[in-house]
Amino acid sequence: MIRALAFDVFGTVVDWRSSIIAELTAFGREHGADADWARFADDWRAGYAPAMDRVRRGELPWTPIDDLHRGRLTELLDGAGIAVNDTAIDHLNRAWHRLQPWPDAIAGLERLKRRYTIATLSNGNVSLLTNMAARAGLPWDSVLSAEMFGHYKPDREVYLGAARALDVAPAELMLVAAHPSDLRAARDAGLHTAYVHRPLEYGAGRDRPRPAAGEFDVTAEDFGDLADQLGA
Amino acid sequence: MIRALAFDVFGTVVDWRSSIIAELTAFGREHGADADWARFADDWRAGYAPAMDRVRRGELPWTPIDDLHRGRLTELLDGAGIAVNDTAIDHLNRAWHRLQPWPDAIAGLERLKRRYTIATLSNGNVSLLTNMAARAGLPWDSVLSAEMFGHYKPDREVYLGAARALDVAPAELMLVAAHPSDLRAARDAGLHTAYVHRPLEYGAGRDRPRPAAGEFDVTAEDFGDLADQLGA
Repeated sequence: MIRALAFDVFGTVVDWRSSIIAELTAFGREHGADADWARFADDWRAGYAPAMDRVRRGELPWTPIDDLHRGRLTELLDGAGIAVNDTAIDHLNRAWHRLQPWPDAIAGLERLKRRYTIATLSNGNVSLLTNMAARAGLPWDSVLSAEMFGHYKPDREVYLGAARALDVAPAELMLVAAHPSDLRAARDAGLHTAYVHRPLEYGAGRDRPRPAAGEFDVTAEDFGDLADQLGA
Repeated sequence: MIRALAFDVFGTVVDWRSSIIAELTAFGREHGADADWARFADDWRAGYAPAMDRVRRGELPWTPIDDLHRGRLTELLDGAGIAVNDTAIDHLNRAWHRLQPWPDAIAGLERLKRRYTIATLSNGNVSLLTNMAARAGLPWDSVLSAEMFGHYKPDREVYLGAARALDVAPAELMLVAAHPSDLRAARDAGLHTAYVHRPLEYGAGRDRPRPAAGEFDVTAEDFGDLADQLGA
């Protein structure tokens, strides 16, 4: 019944927070700047949803995540009184292209790929997802991005666009994500859903509540567990 | 200077003709139908450019290659007096998702991938390219298709769209193709170009003339030679 799996990426496949904190720490060391980098990372990430929502409401024209990230980054650097040149800002902004996968991600994807078509379904732009896959060795069959559909998740067009691009019915496609809001929107568009619990996404001791049992088709502890449950 | 390689697929990466002849032969055996399958394959392929040209001229709305292939296939089956059900036609039409790579393709791509971002840039639809990659083990970093840009090659929007999607300048992107017309259009759009000679694309003894020496940035005998010349 399920023919393809589409994966949310930030937080589900890759550990954005640890990766960004490590990049910020290296940036600070190189440029002689200091800040609470964990908090800076959280503030950077916190700018993401509101910026996308401005695009979703039509207040901004289509704007790739790289540009949304950069706008927020320059605000935060200004706020922290850190002045560096554009090249340094560009390099730091591309930290989102260099995120590290969760430890179970690649082995789990390799297993799932034997049985299902596996693709990204991320709000990240194509180049971000492509560079990340090449660098981290993520074995996607296809890189699908909100950019291709001109809509950000949770707009329904993204989920339906992915099914159309993969030439499967919505019910033959399963979204895999660590975020209930993404999964609910996918379910409303007719997709199947797999929730993967990522207790460290927001840092140690900041686990979020699990969705109610049975709300999604599958609930998994990691990608190995997901592969077990999906018979891959 | 070159950061990414975009590959034409049919004829450049995969041997469509031998693959389609083998699929047609199996189809004939299964359904008790006989025909000159090599000629049938050539006639099927010959319908491809005129059908795309109708889309390019605006006589047809955007139509994926799967549908263009299917339209031509049903004409050819009717002409040959072969009647089978829709499921059999659909399966046969998806032969284009199951094309086999040239013997040098995967090893060459693995080498090139170490140094460059590698992506498809094909008129094939996303699901066709995705299924082909999964089945054949083609190690793309990204699957880029004309479908994403709403234009077929050689429309300039496809070449420029690929550079934009990969976030590189046109001159940082090299099109790899066995077809001079594709390469000329890419060059006109500002891309670099690599011609790969595929003497067997149209069958033994049907080699086409090579382009003039120096017309393209690189001329290679196969993907291993291309990797040698590009230092990968």
